[in-house]
Amino acid sequence: MTKSYGVTLLSGGLDSTTVTTYALRQTGDLTALTFQYGQTHSKEVERAAEICQVMGIRHQLLDISFLRDVAWYSALTNPERFPVPEDRSTEQMGVSIPITYVPLRNTIFLSLAAAFLESQVLHGIEVEGILPQEIEARLYMAPNAIDYSGYPDCRPEYFTQMSQALNHGSKIWTEYQIPFRVETPIIDKSKADIVKMGLDLQAPLELTWSCYLGNATPCGSCDSCILRAKGFQEAGVPDPALNRTD
Amino acid sequence: MTKSYGVTLLSGGLDSTTVTTYALRQTGDLTALTFQYGQTHSKEVERAAEICQVMGIRHQLLDISFLRDVAWYSALTNPERFPVPEDRSTEQMGVSIPITYVPLRNTIFLSLAAAFLESQVLHGIEVEGILPQEIEARLYMAPNAIDYSGYPDCRPEYFTQMSQALNHGSKIWTEYQIPFRVETPIIDKSKADIVKMGLDLQAPLELTWSCYLGNATPCGSCDSCILRAKGFQEAGVPDPALNRTD
Repeated sequence: MTKSYGVTLLSGGLDSTTVTTYALRQTGDLTALTFQYGQTHSKEVERAAEICQVMGIRHQLLDISFLRDVAWYSALTNPERFPVPEDRSTEQMGVSIPITYVPLRNTIFLSLAAAFLESQVLHGIEVEGILPQEIEARLYMAPNAIDYSGYPDCRPEYFTQMSQALNHGSKIWTEYQIPFRVETPIIDKSKADIVKMGLDLQAPLELTWSCYLGNATPCGSCDSCILRAKGFQEAGVPDPALNRTD
Repeated sequence: MTKSYGVTLLSGGLDSTTVTTYALRQTGDLTALTFQYGQTHSKEVERAAEICQVMGIRHQLLDISFLRDVAWYSALTNPERFPVPEDRSTEQMGVSIPITYVPLRNTIFLSLAAAFLESQVLHGIEVEGILPQEIEARLYMAPNAIDYSGYPDCRPEYFTQMSQALNHGSKIWTEYQIPFRVETPIIDKSKADIVKMGLDLQAPLELTWSCYLGNATPCGSCDSCILRAKGFQEAGVPDPALNRTD
């Protein structure tokens, strides 16, 4: 019988919660990692923790606030230094990778997630005695073409290359022939399709938080709120998070 | 005229100080990154800072103590849980990757170093107006076959794969065609050859710290002290750090 270990990157938003629910259908041993850094507010992190509790999965919070010093050339890590331009038309046309790109963010995120996953798998083999040929190692991530158009580390060819690098740098692959399987199940979906997928999977969408602000209720007017509302509208269902206040 | 940006990983030891000196001969804009985590003591970090000051290069310290929670299955990150076995004969024979392996450590280190380097390069192009075709991006690291025999993330084939992943996930490569060049100049050298290389390059070897302990003077009896002493002995020179106390 195959034992499938999984690590999912969970921000607490609609996309990553849908992917996390998808992941739980495929793996018996799932851990959600939530990264805290500049742009994260406590609201998102609280929701991520609540989602993990409801889903009954392990939750590991990681403070990577040093990202501001490392991937410093970005409007997301240093907004006061590199403001997002008002006119975003060139970005939308995909002419250039925008200033909201965070240098190598997904490479950093995947490295950390893979190190956690490798630790779980090595423990399974070397301490619990599970046979390597009965183990799968899966990483789940929620990059999406709509949100991240133009970002180099959100393209399928990047994930292929990164899987190879993770394999070659790991003990689970070089010694036990277990590859890292990087899964990006919503990479090509529209927001409406993600909403439908989340509903189909019975993901706890009522707990998800998309608003850039961390107030009691979503602001309804930031880019993220607007994109989310449009998704639910196109999917033809009400947003279950809107009835919630806390 | 080519502008060469470099990031070097500097622990404050003999190997990384030699590589950092080598790097400074090749790049006009060098930053040293020092990672602080479980195994690091303040002595090493102080020496790394001193070395950067003497060499006149930028120094960025990064606290990654979360490594203990992420790459948790290792004698280096969780020594009380996974002690190094007394009998290390199987390790030395290269039969198996030892418990001192830290899951994906070099992948994490290179991701962070590359994000810093990419930030420097993007700033050079997009703010300072340097032409992409006149820019080089170099990462310097000091893996060595003697210290790390068997570690998957210290083999040349791993570095090749990782360079590719960094390229595919970056803006400097996908938009500006600047590849990451990962340089590992001492990967095949003996400790004696590293000592000779350091002396040739006039690296500040008197400031380097190799001892696992953080006392006023090196203990002289830990694995690292012994390996270092053997290196200087075989190179036929006295260790300049031994006359130093602070």
